[in-house]
Amino acid sequence: GGTVDLAVIAGDGIGTEVVEQGLLVLEAALGADGDGTRLTTTDFDLGARRWHATGETLTDDDLAAIRTHDAILLGAVGDPGVPSGVLERGLLLRLRFELDHYVNLRPGKLFPGVRGPLADPGEVDFVVVREGTEGPYVGNGGAIRIGTPHEVANEVSVNTAFGVERVVRDAFARAAARPRKKLTLVHKHNVLVHAGHLWRRTVEAVNADFPDVTVDYAHVDAATIYLVQDPSRFDVIVTDNLFGDIVTDLAAAVCGGIGLAASGNINPDRTAPSMFEPVHGSAPDIAGQGKADPTATVLSVAMLLEHLGRTAAAARVEAAVAADLAERGTAARSTSEVGKDLAARVAG
Amino acid sequence: GGTVDLAVIAGDGIGTEVVEQGLLVLEAALGADGDGTRLTTTDFDLGARRWHATGETLTDDDLAAIRTHDAILLGAVGDPGVPSGVLERGLLLRLRFELDHYVNLRPGKLFPGVRGPLADPGEVDFVVVREGTEGPYVGNGGAIRIGTPHEVANEVSVNTAFGVERVVRDAFARAAARPRKKLTLVHKHNVLVHAGHLWRRTVEAVNADFPDVTVDYAHVDAATIYLVQDPSRFDVIVTDNLFGDIVTDLAAAVCGGIGLAASGNINPDRTAPSMFEPVHGSAPDIAGQGKADPTATVLSVAMLLEHLGRTAAAARVEAAVAADLAERGTAARSTSEVGKDLAARVAG
Ligand SMILES: CC(C)[C@H](C(=O)O)[C@@H](O)C(=O)O
Ligand SMILES: CC(C)[C@H](C(=O)O)[C@@H](O)C(=O)O
Repeated sequence: GGTVDLAVIAGDGIGTEVVEQGLLVLEAALGADGDGTRLTTTDFDLGARRWHATGETLTDDDLAAIRTHDAILLGAVGDPGVPSGVLERGLLLRLRFELDHYVNLRPGKLFPGVRGPLADPGEVDFVVVREGTEGPYVGNGGAIRIGTPHEVANEVSVNTAFGVERVVRDAFARAAARPRKKLTLVHKHNVLVHAGHLWRRTVEAVNADFPDVTVDYAHVDAATIYLVQDPSRFDVIVTDNLFGDIVTDLAAAVCGGIGLAASGNINPDRTAPSMFEPVHGSAPDIAGQGKADPTATVLSVAMLLEHLGRTAAAARVEAAVAADLAERGTAARSTSEVGKDLAARVAG
Repeated sequence: GGTVDLAVIAGDGIGTEVVEQGLLVLEAALGADGDGTRLTTTDFDLGARRWHATGETLTDDDLAAIRTHDAILLGAVGDPGVPSGVLERGLLLRLRFELDHYVNLRPGKLFPGVRGPLADPGEVDFVVVREGTEGPYVGNGGAIRIGTPHEVANEVSVNTAFGVERVVRDAFARAAARPRKKLTLVHKHNVLVHAGHLWRRTVEAVNADFPDVTVDYAHVDAATIYLVQDPSRFDVIVTDNLFGDIVTDLAAAVCGGIGLAASGNINPDRTAPSMFEPVHGSAPDIAGQGKADPTATVLSVAMLLEHLGRTAAAARVEAAVAADLAERGTAARSTSEVGKDLAARVAG
């Protein structure tokens, strides 16, 4: 029995549409487990709507309430009326930082039946372990003489041994658990020498604890070439917050588009709930039309189940997506049709 | 008559091989101009060989001597025995910074006959104007407690109104001179808010002086998606030093690989010589085998001719490459065969 108690941040635009389907599939997966587990959800009104109404992005009370849940399911937030950075820094990144989501996990898998943009992609099945709490995302920048010809605007990438080591260790553990046991560090240590050398030394040091993992390295610019010329070479990629942001969007494109790209913002120490979200945004241009593909959210639900230790249910959800894509590809179906189809497959 | 007086930094590995062919084609192009212009070259022994022999990367004397030339042709530098960052910071980036190469120009053109990795690329013909003297490339980082569990390694991206405005203005001028007149700013202003907003405001402000140029914007992560899903949408891209590094390698891959990717490190104010180089590196794995494709260097020579005001010669070199690729594709020929074929077309 017991419950899975979720904080739900459906958000704006297609966020609410895809989350509805994600929850449907989650219900079906828990039902199919047959152990009487109940799903309870609490909706958090966060995002553009709330900001327009109240000027708030994420209050301390919101955060305290979110902390009491087992995990968070997030759709997407934002609309064109909110200034750039407000919801990103004030909500999304605040959640990742406050809840110490230091592993931002993003699989890059090309499912059979999906036609990506590459003529000859080969077998693509890797995972990116993107650091989630450091790098140029820390908000440690500033500007002087703004709006004058003498303006200077700086952005600081902060990298600590503590922060790099824990995510590198997590990435090694994931690599060690996969058949190919290969880890690629992506950075730019020939230019960002200080941060780059910290990452490099850390990977070398942690490798000693995972001697069966093969390590290689790619500069971030070269990594983008490999991702389109030979993506099957990758198994586990570990990289910093900004490079991870870039290579995971490219990876999503290579694997058929952000309509299929799932992600987990994970706190492996479980000192706070982890958060699962599709990589895509709120897509105001197609919102309200029932056109959004909920598959990325459903795959994020699979990651959520895995994180909660419900491995069988996670596998069932992923298998349902795989079967659905193999049979129907990404042919146009409405958001709710895809959700219904996937829930039916999961229910068996 | 007169002379074109080049500083040549052939460098290491395949650098020397491709530069030899680049110079052959340059001679042919000047000859075909028929105005008696002579090519004079001075070789600079810089790169891994020199560093191993003397510990020097670029002395003040080297730099002073290089400054006296009309332009620089660079092959590629580096070998696995040189620690990461030594030649990048001490030679390549030092040249770009000291000679104020604030426009790093990188065309992304898919020539007919070239098969890139995309199944359906469409017509790809854009140019990236990458800022060359600021951003996280300035070397304004540092680390404390190196090698301890308390290490902190920072990298600072420096962006100035002066530096951003001049490159944005150059990009607008280029866009205004092209049929589509479209400029895309690539940044990440929702996270790097200080630098991002400076870039954004600058593009808006300079747009007033180029009212017929249409401006749009893509976050760098989204830009990588567009580059593989719909690269024909781009006309001129303007972006910072690091994002430019990343998107131009991806662009090179999309356009058939770095064997074809040319670049110019340009000082538009002509206070110092500009430098032209293929985007690829010294490729120690294939060095000495006559396998390297010199096409990227030859296209860089076309950019060099254009920069020196020899527009007809530049067009002739680019046309020779286009004809060569259309007829023979990128079928395996030796480095010197390709050079000879191209020189013959240019002469012919
Ligand atoms: C919206 C933005 C802050 C975010 C990021 O840059 O991390 C997004 O691009 C992502 O990848 O989740
Ligand atoms: C070698 C390196 C310093 C350089 C850069 O990062 O600019 C290279 O990648 C390039 O793009 O010319």
